[in-house]
Amino acid sequence: MEQSSLKNRQWVLNQRPNGAPTPDDFKLVESDIPSLNEGEVLLKTRYLSLDPYMRGRMSDAPSYAPSLNIGEVIVGGTVSEVVESKNPKFAKGDRVLAGSGWQEYEVSDGTGLMLVEGLPEPSYALSLMGMPGFTAYHGLLNIGEPKPGETVVVASASGAVGSVVGQIAKLKGCRVVGITSGGKKQQYVKDTLGFDESLDRHSPNFEAELAKAAPDGIDVYYENVGGAVFDAVLPLLNDFARIPVCGVIAHYNATELPQGPDRVPMLAGMILRKRIRMQGFIIMDHYETGYAPFAKEMTQWLKAGQIRIKEDRVQGFEAAPEAFIGLLEGKNFGKVVVDFGA
Amino acid sequence: MEQSSLKNRQWVLNQRPNGAPTPDDFKLVESDIPSLNEGEVLLKTRYLSLDPYMRGRMSDAPSYAPSLNIGEVIVGGTVSEVVESKNPKFAKGDRVLAGSGWQEYEVSDGTGLMLVEGLPEPSYALSLMGMPGFTAYHGLLNIGEPKPGETVVVASASGAVGSVVGQIAKLKGCRVVGITSGGKKQQYVKDTLGFDESLDRHSPNFEAELAKAAPDGIDVYYENVGGAVFDAVLPLLNDFARIPVCGVIAHYNATELPQGPDRVPMLAGMILRKRIRMQGFIIMDHYETGYAPFAKEMTQWLKAGQIRIKEDRVQGFEAAPEAFIGLLEGKNFGKVVVDFGA
Repeated sequence: MEQSSLKNRQWVLNQRPNGAPTPDDFKLVESDIPSLNEGEVLLKTRYLSLDPYMRGRMSDAPSYAPSLNIGEVIVGGTVSEVVESKNPKFAKGDRVLAGSGWQEYEVSDGTGLMLVEGLPEPSYALSLMGMPGFTAYHGLLNIGEPKPGETVVVASASGAVGSVVGQIAKLKGCRVVGITSGGKKQQYVKDTLGFDESLDRHSPNFEAELAKAAPDGIDVYYENVGGAVFDAVLPLLNDFARIPVCGVIAHYNATELPQGPDRVPMLAGMILRKRIRMQGFIIMDHYETGYAPFAKEMTQWLKAGQIRIKEDRVQGFEAAPEAFIGLLEGKNFGKVVVDFGA
Repeated sequence: MEQSSLKNRQWVLNQRPNGAPTPDDFKLVESDIPSLNEGEVLLKTRYLSLDPYMRGRMSDAPSYAPSLNIGEVIVGGTVSEVVESKNPKFAKGDRVLAGSGWQEYEVSDGTGLMLVEGLPEPSYALSLMGMPGFTAYHGLLNIGEPKPGETVVVASASGAVGSVVGQIAKLKGCRVVGITSGGKKQQYVKDTLGFDESLDRHSPNFEAELAKAAPDGIDVYYENVGGAVFDAVLPLLNDFARIPVCGVIAHYNATELPQGPDRVPMLAGMILRKRIRMQGFIIMDHYETGYAPFAKEMTQWLKAGQIRIKEDRVQGFEAAPEAFIGLLEGKNFGKVVVDFGA
């Protein structure tokens, strides 16, 4: 097909969400695809990763990464196919890990593209071998520092990050308690992933169930949700517990702080008395030094069949906004990947 | 004097304080001193250290150390004199670092006693070379990890811990901002201790003054007060800031949490976005591995005249409760030491 006859479809930010995103916050636009200059490649998106951090980019609150502007294509990791190349490093047909975002095509000068090879599924470059997997690995091992026999608790336990956190903690000899929204997710985490216990955070007895599932207390709480789970974990933390803070999805849609009392003094007092270490991290800071050792160990586990990922595949470019809204509501079951089709 | 004719006076916990301690919470009792068995020494208290952690021991809330029982002698570090010895390791007249608490005499079997020698003042064993100095050193260097050129903020900056934190940070090449309750304390911290800036936390423009005093933001906030100072520091924290949590004196007397909103989600979000490390510590955990290197470096600084401590000497055993109440109110100027007299 003549490139100039192609149209590119893009999801752009239509307006900043106020609280939970709605379909009106996204706009589908069409644009022409410029012809390639020397050194450039034309990428066609095959798989788009949807991740909670994207909600932060839609906001204009100060953060670690610049906000999206209104009208800008929404950011996101992709597995893309090189459909035309004027860059000697890439050939037509190559599959690459790219950051094309929520659009069907992107012209790239090749910077930052990585070939995707040797994976059971190319989309694993967006999950186990990609940002969520690296986030799980780095936060758990380098900040959480779990020791064999310790108890690790993680929420969103069937999700892209939580499921990997728990599996790695098991591989490292820990007792692992996963928190889910119940039902088939709860079953999957215990039966398929092999966590020691899995809980339903909506259970009326959730706090008591968590205490029972962690009879020796909690040594590492991998924080990726915040809210009521954090509150239930706090009294169970052991002395010298570690809390890697990877995300607080429960708060991403919040438009105001919850009602009081203000528990910051309580938290500070507990951090002191229990000698807790609470540390935030953003995985983008750690690629340069940390990605290679992660990729090596994860590849070994993957080849040995010791780790798995469940994908929640969404079909078609058009479905992205609705799938993202559902992700923030916890409606997904597994890592959300939008399959753009061939 | 025949030992059996001596009476021992003790301050015991009369009732648990409800909020700020009052004189009624303490009771002066007299007791006999038992005669010595083989291996024991009779210690006469010369100096008693008063420290904020004692407030925690008077409470029955769960904590890292057991609560005092009603009627028990209040705990505390002392510099004591051996006035009689049936232990070959100690001779009459020896000065020792002990934990006799709020009493005039103690019979000890020698366990844990350390000879106090070679200090400009024996009471320095309770401050620079003792628990407060070690607390300052360990928290700042091993948790705060300040780098030359970074900005360190510490409150209670004329006090036993804060004054040492700031002086060490200066020795390590940092910009140091001390927070005080104003007046002569504020002047002392800047003029005598050589901090770069000193502020009055009661100033109506405190937040703006702190921002001005830390034009490049805050890299290490040594937390020993909590409350309004913590709140003013938070927005100024740089990415990758460290918060060693040594104490939260502002909350020790609190009987309930402050009014809302609940800022825990805000704090968690900030820890994530700014990749902050917040870590509590209790210095008692670190004597075994950390005291020797601390003592070596501190002795060098002391001998070289590079570090100093201001003592707030309180005269007489009877004065202990009032001095302790004043310490929690910030009325002291320097390290509070009760001089029991010869």
